[in-house]
Amino acid sequence: MPAGEIYPVTSVRESATIPSKPKEYQLIQVKNTWIRIESGHDIPCTWEEDQIILSQAKIGEKVTDSGISWTVQAPIYFRYKVVESQNLLDPSNPTLLYGHVADPQEMEAYQKKPQKRLIVIDHTVDKLYGSKVRRYFEAYNVNYKILPFITTEETKSMDLVMRILEEVHKFSLDRRTEPIIAIGGGVCLDIVGLAASLYRRRTPYIRVPTTLLSYVDASVGAKNGVNFCNCKNKLGSYTPPAATFLDRSFIQTIPRRQISNGLGEILKMALMKHKGLFELLERHGKYLLDTKFQTRIGVKSHADPALKATRLAIETMLEELAPNLWEDDLDRLVDYGHVISPELEMKVLPALMHGEAVNIDMAFMTYISYVQGMITPEERHRTIQCMRGLELPVWHVDCSLSLIRKALAERFKHSGGQMRLPLPTGLGSAEIFNNVGDKAIERAFKMWEEDCKP
Amino acid sequence: MPAGEIYPVTSVRESATIPSKPKEYQLIQVKNTWIRIESGHDIPCTWEEDQIILSQAKIGEKVTDSGISWTVQAPIYFRYKVVESQNLLDPSNPTLLYGHVADPQEMEAYQKKPQKRLIVIDHTVDKLYGSKVRRYFEAYNVNYKILPFITTEETKSMDLVMRILEEVHKFSLDRRTEPIIAIGGGVCLDIVGLAASLYRRRTPYIRVPTTLLSYVDASVGAKNGVNFCNCKNKLGSYTPPAATFLDRSFIQTIPRRQISNGLGEILKMALMKHKGLFELLERHGKYLLDTKFQTRIGVKSHADPALKATRLAIETMLEELAPNLWEDDLDRLVDYGHVISPELEMKVLPALMHGEAVNIDMAFMTYISYVQGMITPEERHRTIQCMRGLELPVWHVDCSLSLIRKALAERFKHSGGQMRLPLPTGLGSAEIFNNVGDKAIERAFKMWEEDCKP
Repeated sequence: MPAGEIYPVTSVRESATIPSKPKEYQLIQVKNTWIRIESGHDIPCTWEEDQIILSQAKIGEKVTDSGISWTVQAPIYFRYKVVESQNLLDPSNPTLLYGHVADPQEMEAYQKKPQKRLIVIDHTVDKLYGSKVRRYFEAYNVNYKILPFITTEETKSMDLVMRILEEVHKFSLDRRTEPIIAIGGGVCLDIVGLAASLYRRRTPYIRVPTTLLSYVDASVGAKNGVNFCNCKNKLGSYTPPAATFLDRSFIQTIPRRQISNGLGEILKMALMKHKGLFELLERHGKYLLDTKFQTRIGVKSHADPALKATRLAIETMLEELAPNLWEDDLDRLVDYGHVISPELEMKVLPALMHGEAVNIDMAFMTYISYVQGMITPEERHRTIQCMRGLELPVWHVDCSLSLIRKALAERFKHSGGQMRLPLPTGLGSAEIFNNVGDKAIERAFKMWEEDCKP
Repeated sequence: MPAGEIYPVTSVRESATIPSKPKEYQLIQVKNTWIRIESGHDIPCTWEEDQIILSQAKIGEKVTDSGISWTVQAPIYFRYKVVESQNLLDPSNPTLLYGHVADPQEMEAYQKKPQKRLIVIDHTVDKLYGSKVRRYFEAYNVNYKILPFITTEETKSMDLVMRILEEVHKFSLDRRTEPIIAIGGGVCLDIVGLAASLYRRRTPYIRVPTTLLSYVDASVGAKNGVNFCNCKNKLGSYTPPAATFLDRSFIQTIPRRQISNGLGEILKMALMKHKGLFELLERHGKYLLDTKFQTRIGVKSHADPALKATRLAIETMLEELAPNLWEDDLDRLVDYGHVISPELEMKVLPALMHGEAVNIDMAFMTYISYVQGMITPEERHRTIQCMRGLELPVWHVDCSLSLIRKALAERFKHSGGQMRLPLPTGLGSAEIFNNVGDKAIERAFKMWEEDCKP
């Protein structure tokens, strides 16, 4: 076509070429084809209503001198289950195999063919529970493969993710009906979550937490990740599991210090938003440590502190995580205890466990809250006493004023130029603050040192 | 607490322990704290309405004998721009630096501080345009780093993703205001997209496609990925960029065969859902090849086949991709040409380019449609003629009946036990079919061979 010849446009949908005001289109599907309809305009009555599917996605269109600019807005609906289950490894309990299935229709698809499962298990958990896991899948005639790995902060790397992915690939799972199962602590769940999120752009996986910390923390959200260049969880994604299965009986085999470790995260939720949970921990901390979160024979479930504490921890966590699954909102109560602790953990690793570092952070923040006049001396005292009762450290020699200042500067940088400090405003209530000055920090630090330094 | 003692529950929120009918909770935020409210119940009037934020997320709760089962439903809203822009590398055009910014408020945050950008560029593109890219960022006083990489199907691996991530980490980007920029073909955009999606669980990135294929295909959706264990795009994620910037001038430096390659994907959209676009390709295919999609001097934009063809390709692609960003719906018209071609590509690589393999697949499918009585002999003829006009192969010796059968079996396996074949039902209209029998496939193959084998 020679330059300048007018191209016939009659049969081509008119694309705007003159600058005009922005338009927004909705999308409807008719017989497999998506069609855009300008928002506010009627859907042509060529089709019956029941033939039409309306999408939640929208396309904006703006014409300028330099061309068209389209804006896509599309929601993705995540759906996952968090399920309490007793005797998860008992073959009479089908949860581990089918508990993630959403509805009877999906269940039918599952039962049409022999099942296949790849199980990634922490090697310590494998030693303790591996034979039960094997017996379980054998009882169901599942074609299974168990991969035990050492899963610690040191092995939490992309290398291990790639090793798991090679096994996933070799095992040739059906990406729709054969979820990968992860059994272990938070590190194991994080590594497998990342591997699953990458394989074929998303393969379903199941979390089975075996420590108290992962039971109440890694179990409920969407996050996964691995360490990278000496930084914690620098690589990862937000991909929720198909389901998390919670069985408290695993907790009976973990050491007492690890129970305290998990109690640190439970206490976080209590301090931020649940006075009842705080009082429960205050009153029954020692009992929970002594019984390792097991229900004593004869204790009714409504009277069982272990059941209550874990449920409330999970419910409060879900409340905070579900509306902010991808952490788009930077004002997060669940960040309490996680402002100074990353810096501290990096400095002293492996001397402090995660929940311990979190607790030291929270202990200091309690004093910030106090000097800001947000909690009473009694509330401050009860908070620190409760921490001690849970056998958590309330002070650390390496948590110096300069480390605290450095951590707060990091926080500032990565939180869009605001401090966004979650701070208690009472026992079980909190708000986000941006106006904590250096004077207050210094005063709080002095008082904290006086009270808590042994 | 001795076994059997009743735990005082007064101060703890009552958690249900008796099996009951499922409940659903909405989530509202009051002063930084998320609270669940049973759906259908009134929001307590303790708070002013304007203090309350209502989330789209929901939490279901079901109590059974074995405990509580929570179901989280949470939408994540993706938003990204696809922007036509001329002279993208001209310093007078601020698009490359600021074109992704959503609103004036965000823009303010940007302009508060010196800008920093990491640019990953295909090494061939770097040779052609690298000095212009450098001049651009120097003109804006940006602290920038350019990483040229060979980006081909052979280097498209997790290794390259990790190398990029090390550079990202060293360069210390602000994850909110300093997007990673990818300049290159589809492979380059895919690799950078995956790296960005992993860094700190999601770092914004920008796509600048430099080939016709990536201009109309990799540019518009959310997919990224790398090859793994000899399989195409086996690892990846669905993470849309912050923005894609489209500048047709890059296309003038690519070889003619690569223009045909891109035309294959444009033709796909034409055949599936846009007769006008088909007629444009039919009529102006040679012109588009000769002019390499550049607008000749004096041609008005409404009369420019290159502008029209690319716009329609992108609009139709966006229509199909936006409502199905994570590919949850398996019935996809955009899969046309992608049923047999992956098998064929793997077999003959690097003899066929992607768009060529796609076209061979579409040519065969045209015959399926024909023997099923869905298109007329004339429509079949015009389709194949149009393909020839675009200088695309319509037949390949390695695309044997057994390869086709194998590919269809794979399709069946990975599409939830159904064929889900998108097939034309005319010129520019299509539907998904599950009922294509082996007899029809055999007949179509024979007829295809007779007509198209040279």
